[in-house]
Amino acid sequence: MSKAVNRRIVLASRPNGNPTEDDFSVVEQAVPVPGDGEVLLRNMFISLDPYNRIVMGNAASDAPALDIGQLMIGMTVAVVEASNNPAFPVGDHVVTMSGWQEYAVSDGTDLRTIDPAQAPLSASLGLLGHTGLTAWVGLTEVLDPKGGGTLVVTAAGGAVGSVAVQIGKLRGYRVVGVAGGAEKSRYLLDVLGVDAAADYLAPDFAEQLARAVPDGIDGVFESVGASMVEALLPHLNVNAKIAVCGLMSQIGKVEAAPGPDRVPDLLRAVLYRTLTIRGFTINDHLAAYPAFLSEVGAWLAEGKLTYAEHVVDGFDAIPAAYARLFGGRTLGKLVARVA
Amino acid sequence: MSKAVNRRIVLASRPNGNPTEDDFSVVEQAVPVPGDGEVLLRNMFISLDPYNRIVMGNAASDAPALDIGQLMIGMTVAVVEASNNPAFPVGDHVVTMSGWQEYAVSDGTDLRTIDPAQAPLSASLGLLGHTGLTAWVGLTEVLDPKGGGTLVVTAAGGAVGSVAVQIGKLRGYRVVGVAGGAEKSRYLLDVLGVDAAADYLAPDFAEQLARAVPDGIDGVFESVGASMVEALLPHLNVNAKIAVCGLMSQIGKVEAAPGPDRVPDLLRAVLYRTLTIRGFTINDHLAAYPAFLSEVGAWLAEGKLTYAEHVVDGFDAIPAAYARLFGGRTLGKLVARVA
Repeated sequence: MSKAVNRRIVLASRPNGNPTEDDFSVVEQAVPVPGDGEVLLRNMFISLDPYNRIVMGNAASDAPALDIGQLMIGMTVAVVEASNNPAFPVGDHVVTMSGWQEYAVSDGTDLRTIDPAQAPLSASLGLLGHTGLTAWVGLTEVLDPKGGGTLVVTAAGGAVGSVAVQIGKLRGYRVVGVAGGAEKSRYLLDVLGVDAAADYLAPDFAEQLARAVPDGIDGVFESVGASMVEALLPHLNVNAKIAVCGLMSQIGKVEAAPGPDRVPDLLRAVLYRTLTIRGFTINDHLAAYPAFLSEVGAWLAEGKLTYAEHVVDGFDAIPAAYARLFGGRTLGKLVARVA
Repeated sequence: MSKAVNRRIVLASRPNGNPTEDDFSVVEQAVPVPGDGEVLLRNMFISLDPYNRIVMGNAASDAPALDIGQLMIGMTVAVVEASNNPAFPVGDHVVTMSGWQEYAVSDGTDLRTIDPAQAPLSASLGLLGHTGLTAWVGLTEVLDPKGGGTLVVTAAGGAVGSVAVQIGKLRGYRVVGVAGGAEKSRYLLDVLGVDAAADYLAPDFAEQLARAVPDGIDGVFESVGASMVEALLPHLNVNAKIAVCGLMSQIGKVEAAPGPDRVPDLLRAVLYRTLTIRGFTINDHLAAYPAFLSEVGAWLAEGKLTYAEHVVDGFDAIPAAYARLFGGRTLGKLVARVA
């Protein structure tokens, strides 16, 4: 073992709105010792995701929150440092849910071995992990898998959105990315290859959006929230579908939104334009992993996909990096390299 | 020909909110004469439906409105009174869209022959017509056709709702009917056989609803509007589906609804409970008629379905009867017997 201390990031306080550095604290414990059939894992990459905010509590969600002092949960890529389990020899790389800490012990039941020669290790948390699967499921099992027409992806510069716009293009959609700031619009156009971008922070967002969807909208991959759905509503075509996989702008908001109540308008659109609005969570679609990896792996091998990653270095950098995620100042998938 | 005059009900004015008798006027014209290949139809039953309000204009809908002075559109059951078309001999009964008038001429392309021995003629406008098809499509192609769990039908005493509750029971749902007034609750329980009823006009509606759905709600057949969706929302189970086929309470409302804006709450439920909300219109599902008539016809032959009809007598009674439809004072399908 390279060190005797395991650092862990635990929940220090429940955020009011967006999380801050001070909502976390770092605690130390002895590096755990694997028992019979167990392995010692050293985390190499830790995934930092919007859902972490929900489990911090004081959020507008039904999901249970962590207790104060509990380890922050999260997916990781780890290397096996010591092994009493022949299925996972020392040196193997695995994906697991070991949380925001440096070391963990596992009996192997929650590990999936990955091949470091196939793709960068961190990709198993992004393009080839739950992030990519979320984008793929939305575009395959919720929206029309045949593609075609105009697809709008909100939070298009984010982890899931940056994969969704690329899969959308490969499925034959005209893809419009919505993100905040001119820099993100340029990134969407120049790096991710969207057909048009709209900057929701710009004063002329409504006009940018209208110009970006001259033939209306047939599919929406949505992870922002009410304000975005309301902005897109006037442009939705008959039989348009909205796949809801996140509500980034609503996560920390528990107070009532100012009126008028727009539910009547939304239902009118649902009825008169025969819309479908469907929420989905990746936990219901884990069985799709093989189909997802097969299609996305082939695109990757053909050079048709870009890794959109934002890597921060060092375990100590995690709290501040996580706070920045909610300021919209992250492009692509946010991961921390911790070893 | 039995008379020389054809009376027609035309749009006299656009309603403000719910329609009134004065929004219609009766005009007379000569009974039309069928040309080569045409038939003269005498209407026997005229269907009176919520969508008629939409085509009267000044409604919160994208649908085009009739011009003032135009004939009110509507489905009818008619008898062939004179025929120059061998496919439709004198005495045949047909279903067609001949509108709110006593006579019409057709070239036959818009006629469907029905057998008066199979069911009462008016049933082709209700249980065996577009009304029944709407209920069947919602429960077959939008909600889960396998049934099971708890189904809530709003406007359950209405034309479509009264069929939806019965099909829901036959599909194995626990069925809860929501309607306005104690009389309608009794009708739902005693005549249509729902498992529980809730009266949305009662001061304790929220408690009635909560008692009626002890295991939550898995499917909603919805035709009322925003207030109803908001009332049901707290009870929706994970993976619940809402089929929206009408917005009876919103049809005549064009002004903004008072705040707060509940779209954020609705989207939270959509995401965290992975809901599906889907609008549908029968015009997209007319190809389902054979499958619908096969299943519903068999249930009818086995005595498993009740005709829920409200028949008004006489052509002159139509304007007042139509106005009453929006006061919630009609049970089942509203039709006028005009010959």
